[in-house]
Amino acid sequence: MRGLMKTARGTGNLEIREVDNPRPGVNEVLVEVAAAGICGSDIHIKHDRSFYTPPVILGHEYSGTVVEIGSGVQDIEVGERVVSPATAYCGRCYQCKTGHMNRCTAQGKRILGVSQANGAFAKYLTVPEYIVHKVPEGVSMEEAALAEPTACIVHAVAERTSICPGDTVVVQGPGTMGLLAVQVAKAMGAGKVIVSGVSSDRWRLDVAEKTGADLTLDVQAEADAVEVVREHTGGLGADAVIEASGACVACSQALDFVKVAGHISLVGVRGQPMEIDLDPMIDKELTMTGTWGTLPSSWVTTLRLLSSRKIDVSPLITHRISLDEWEKGFELMETQQAIKVLFADLE
Amino acid sequence: MRGLMKTARGTGNLEIREVDNPRPGVNEVLVEVAAAGICGSDIHIKHDRSFYTPPVILGHEYSGTVVEIGSGVQDIEVGERVVSPATAYCGRCYQCKTGHMNRCTAQGKRILGVSQANGAFAKYLTVPEYIVHKVPEGVSMEEAALAEPTACIVHAVAERTSICPGDTVVVQGPGTMGLLAVQVAKAMGAGKVIVSGVSSDRWRLDVAEKTGADLTLDVQAEADAVEVVREHTGGLGADAVIEASGACVACSQALDFVKVAGHISLVGVRGQPMEIDLDPMIDKELTMTGTWGTLPSSWVTTLRLLSSRKIDVSPLITHRISLDEWEKGFELMETQQAIKVLFADLE
Amino acid sequence: MRGLMKTARGTGNLEIREVDNPRPGVNEVLVEVAAAGICGSDIHIKHDRSFYTPPVILGHEYSGTVVEIGSGVQDIEVGERVVSPATAYCGRCYQCKTGHMNRCTAQGKRILGVSQANGAFAKYLTVPEYIVHKVPEGVSMEEAALAEPTACIVHAVAERTSICPGDTVVVQGPGTMGLLAVQVAKAMGAGKVIVSGVSSDRWRLDVAEKTGADLTLDVQAEADAVEVVREHTGGLGADAVIEASGACVACSQALDFVKVAGHISLVGVRGQPMEIDLDPMIDKELTMTGTWGTLPSSWVTTLRLLSSRKIDVSPLITHRISLDEWEKGFELMETQQAIKVLFADLE
Amino acid sequence: MRGLMKTARGTGNLEIREVDNPRPGVNEVLVEVAAAGICGSDIHIKHDRSFYTPPVILGHEYSGTVVEIGSGVQDIEVGERVVSPATAYCGRCYQCKTGHMNRCTAQGKRILGVSQANGAFAKYLTVPEYIVHKVPEGVSMEEAALAEPTACIVHAVAERTSICPGDTVVVQGPGTMGLLAVQVAKAMGAGKVIVSGVSSDRWRLDVAEKTGADLTLDVQAEADAVEVVREHTGGLGADAVIEASGACVACSQALDFVKVAGHISLVGVRGQPMEIDLDPMIDKELTMTGTWGTLPSSWVTTLRLLSSRKIDVSPLITHRISLDEWEKGFELMETQQAIKVLFADLE
Repeated sequence: MRGLMKTARGTGNLEIREVDNPRPGVNEVLVEVAAAGICGSDIHIKHDRSFYTPPVILGHEYSGTVVEIGSGVQDIEVGERVVSPATAYCGRCYQCKTGHMNRCTAQGKRILGVSQANGAFAKYLTVPEYIVHKVPEGVSMEEAALAEPTACIVHAVAERTSICPGDTVVVQGPGTMGLLAVQVAKAMGAGKVIVSGVSSDRWRLDVAEKTGADLTLDVQAEADAVEVVREHTGGLGADAVIEASGACVACSQALDFVKVAGHISLVGVRGQPMEIDLDPMIDKELTMTGTWGTLPSSWVTTLRLLSSRKIDVSPLITHRISLDEWEKGFELMETQQAIKVLFADLE
Repeated sequence: MRGLMKTARGTGNLEIREVDNPRPGVNEVLVEVAAAGICGSDIHIKHDRSFYTPPVILGHEYSGTVVEIGSGVQDIEVGERVVSPATAYCGRCYQCKTGHMNRCTAQGKRILGVSQANGAFAKYLTVPEYIVHKVPEGVSMEEAALAEPTACIVHAVAERTSICPGDTVVVQGPGTMGLLAVQVAKAMGAGKVIVSGVSSDRWRLDVAEKTGADLTLDVQAEADAVEVVREHTGGLGADAVIEASGACVACSQALDFVKVAGHISLVGVRGQPMEIDLDPMIDKELTMTGTWGTLPSSWVTTLRLLSSRKIDVSPLITHRISLDEWEKGFELMETQQAIKVLFADLE
Repeated sequence: MRGLMKTARGTGNLEIREVDNPRPGVNEVLVEVAAAGICGSDIHIKHDRSFYTPPVILGHEYSGTVVEIGSGVQDIEVGERVVSPATAYCGRCYQCKTGHMNRCTAQGKRILGVSQANGAFAKYLTVPEYIVHKVPEGVSMEEAALAEPTACIVHAVAERTSICPGDTVVVQGPGTMGLLAVQVAKAMGAGKVIVSGVSSDRWRLDVAEKTGADLTLDVQAEADAVEVVREHTGGLGADAVIEASGACVACSQALDFVKVAGHISLVGVRGQPMEIDLDPMIDKELTMTGTWGTLPSSWVTTLRLLSSRKIDVSPLITHRISLDEWEKGFELMETQQAIKVLFADLE
Repeated sequence: MRGLMKTARGTGNLEIREVDNPRPGVNEVLVEVAAAGICGSDIHIKHDRSFYTPPVILGHEYSGTVVEIGSGVQDIEVGERVVSPATAYCGRCYQCKTGHMNRCTAQGKRILGVSQANGAFAKYLTVPEYIVHKVPEGVSMEEAALAEPTACIVHAVAERTSICPGDTVVVQGPGTMGLLAVQVAKAMGAGKVIVSGVSSDRWRLDVAEKTGADLTLDVQAEADAVEVVREHTGGLGADAVIEASGACVACSQALDFVKVAGHISLVGVRGQPMEIDLDPMIDKELTMTGTWGTLPSSWVTTLRLLSSRKIDVSPLITHRISLDEWEKGFELMETQQAIKVLFADLE
């Protein structure tokens, strides 16, 4: 089969390579990929900006069908439609034993499409059974390919952020994560969701409006964005702010947007130190949570939300490409002309 | 003015009486009642089955307009549309200081329409400012008259029950409380709400379906209601059960309906001991919560839910009557021919 | 080696049998047992009153030293001192994925000393690596043998019960579980712990006093036990009640002991239905939790509590016996003449 | 009577003034002050660095005896020993209604010793009944005078920080707040408390050791403080970090000290922006909470902790002075030669 492989360290070194078809090992299933999304971290790996172990076929946002099962597999049969997280957590380390499998510290653990395991930008990949989740009826394979980023947001917003029904939530940054946060917040009963972005985000703010945002806010065009949030919250400020932009200035602004005793949820990574006054954390008695990745429970909730149509991720799929069009797909993502680009043909 | 007064202890002793118009005392507002609902506890007082101090004008589910303010009132002006809980909690007792104002233990405290304070089945009533909540724009006075029972359910379901987005919730008993629970659970993101009742509940189960229930269940007609719940939850059982029927058998059934590690929320009062096997609490590692009344925060959330149209209480108002028709109104409630009967004319 | 084996269904059928020494399989360690406690469920299995799959060597409360490792074992070396829960949870089922490994629903799963796996009433047993916890320095092997019941109480009290520092906690039933609850509650900052029992519990109530209880209460001798609790709590009632007796009457009494908005934690199993008035759940706005077994995190906390000497389980070890004395050991436990009987010599 | 009054805006303007004895108003009690502590915010007011409304007698950390009650007072009698928070929260604003009385937004509200109400650096002060808490038997008046700062720490640590029994907690800054945090963390079951400070803190670190700290750490003398914390936590990092120093560098260090999925509790105010990398919030999936002041429940817990001797604040009282010695007292606090200076003679 062919796979989009990061062949070696350094910028670039990304190319389609021919490799042997994988076979499922003990307790593994062989999955034929139906669709696979390009994620920001794929871009980072391309540019050698984040952790990976080459050579490795990229791709960890995927859906597929089980075509073969390895020995020891107990609950999954050939033909099952499946998704999974990227990380094969060890279950033995302190983090795993205390319920933080998303921060498993096992050395050399397999992370699909990143480290010690090829990913989903290929016709097939092998996945350990215990991290697999079955796709419920009524959820399409394309929708299921967005289960991974959705589960990240479910973890951040539904599992780690306090939102009461009727609350006003500000989402900063209308990228994939921010747009998914709009829908998850709405599904949790948010009365009003306000999405903020910069001027170049205009078209993505429009997508936000079409997918549930009650108000969008261009913080560059707006004279006083904090005042706008205040007006829409009876002077109180937002009950919760989801920082999904990764911008330094957004982090300070979150402290201004949020009400006294409110919640700030950090999803976007800055990649650098910043100048910030954290005293509002105390003056306003705030709670701030950071989140990384997903727990097994995040997937259970994600698949229920997709299955009950409480959220609809299909409007976020802006482009569908074949494996051969990978350069175009990466460029669309890097230049923010796309929300989610899916490989829909992995041959 | 005229008021529907419980004049003395004993069954009955309920009649329209002419009384002097009340005047607001220090820190009080005078409210002209717009609409007032008949509650199950009004029925109980009529039949001398619950606590009250006669003579007292009944009625504690109400909305109205402030027509006069007493000295010391600071935040409310004449013309403001308002609602309030019945109980004027003391703020000084152990319960109040630990955040349980709903269970204030002050002796002789005022409870509108029940004890030490006339209620809303009259043209006017006086209310201490600190328990008053303003009705947001866009919420009608009739809707606001249901804020009190809604706040009870918001307290039980949104403040005291674990519901994750996408969860399946069973509501037992399609009375006012149960029907409100359907909507609040849905607003919190429940993926599926199943309402159970007995055969005579059929028409109220139909209302449940019209107001958001995904499935209704006649537990008398159904051969195996537990099996039905299991089928609709992939064999797991319901994530949460809201017991709003007050039936003994429903309590045992809740333990069968609920999944392992699920939540049972008791809202309906039984008024008697029962035979029950509580070992499933342990075997299934369950959490059971009882709730009573409302906290100030329950009202904040309730008014946000009404204002953002996340819930719509108007379909629950089945009858509108004048003060003179009180006997008919009480009978409709007692015979379960009504869901909510509102006094819409208090002259 | 010799092992105490339940050979077949039916009462009795418990005897010392000679079996081959076990060898560790893939991902397993071979443990030489240092000490192993007799648990109530061992008694139940003896009398055919609970689940097990014969033939099986009993014993699941143990400590030991790793003497051999199977292939694939990564984090454990020969010589390591270890403990573990009984159940090898699957990690794949809904319960495991949502963090309730204690209620894993995998068919045919291994439960040491109960089902599909021999237990610790023998010189050796094999244990899957992923359920093993290392015993910290400074904790003796005898203390470590009580890690399993301690972890059950840590799960019930520290992970599933609300206790604020300074609170008053009532523990019902001075058996092993109740006595461990005294210490865990104290370690969590309980200001006062009251232990209740029946007259025949007198000597165990004395142990409670020696291990931290501030007051013990013979509910048969006491004219009004509820009044005593009230006197010791400024009239409020206990902040939390841990029901560890399994008596029906204790369950009703828990509802009387507890304060408004308090917490009842069910640990003891009744094995039968009972007559009870659950309306106080509502009137007092209570929370009731049942708990079963342990989570991996319960073990982490347990071993920290043992290691930091916040709890001292050694006073609960009342008898040490050899394998040949098993009949005496079982009788001591059944007749409640012992708190914890340890097999200290497994040859 | 005489009182230590901030007479007007500007630095200084602090002096002993003769004023009329106050009389209790409606719902107020008149308290004869037994002891009153000098707080950091008193220093700030002296130097015109924080909010106050002159002229005002300072002092809000106090204990005293009720010597007269105003009309309407219901639960308190002459002779009662009492303490109270400084702020008379309104109970009507959004913050109060949602349980955040510590952040009450009422305009012109009374804050004892700060705004609209004279404080406790005088023989008498008047206090609204509803904010008063009774001092339990066995707690001395000097201990009770530290109830206010203790309640602040109880709110921060016991009410807003996740600490499991057996956890390791780092407290940054051995001032009054930090030293109280040591004891409250220990009372909650912390297995190990590590206190960090700078070289000039040496004598206060010694006090920390005498009052429960397991280890103290001079971050200026220590080559690698993060490594020391790691060594004492099996390589994991601290479960929780209480930042009570107000130093910018401490805030960054907190992110290094804390374990993955740990908790950082901000108590100390910086008063300025800082350079910080917040990405560890995400990488380590942290929770950060800020806290300000106290809730009524914080006082309930504080008085229980004092009464049950789970904490002992008396070692923190390093100096006792008379009203005339106020300049010396303020200087001791400003130069960090004292932990807590009490006015023990208010004549």
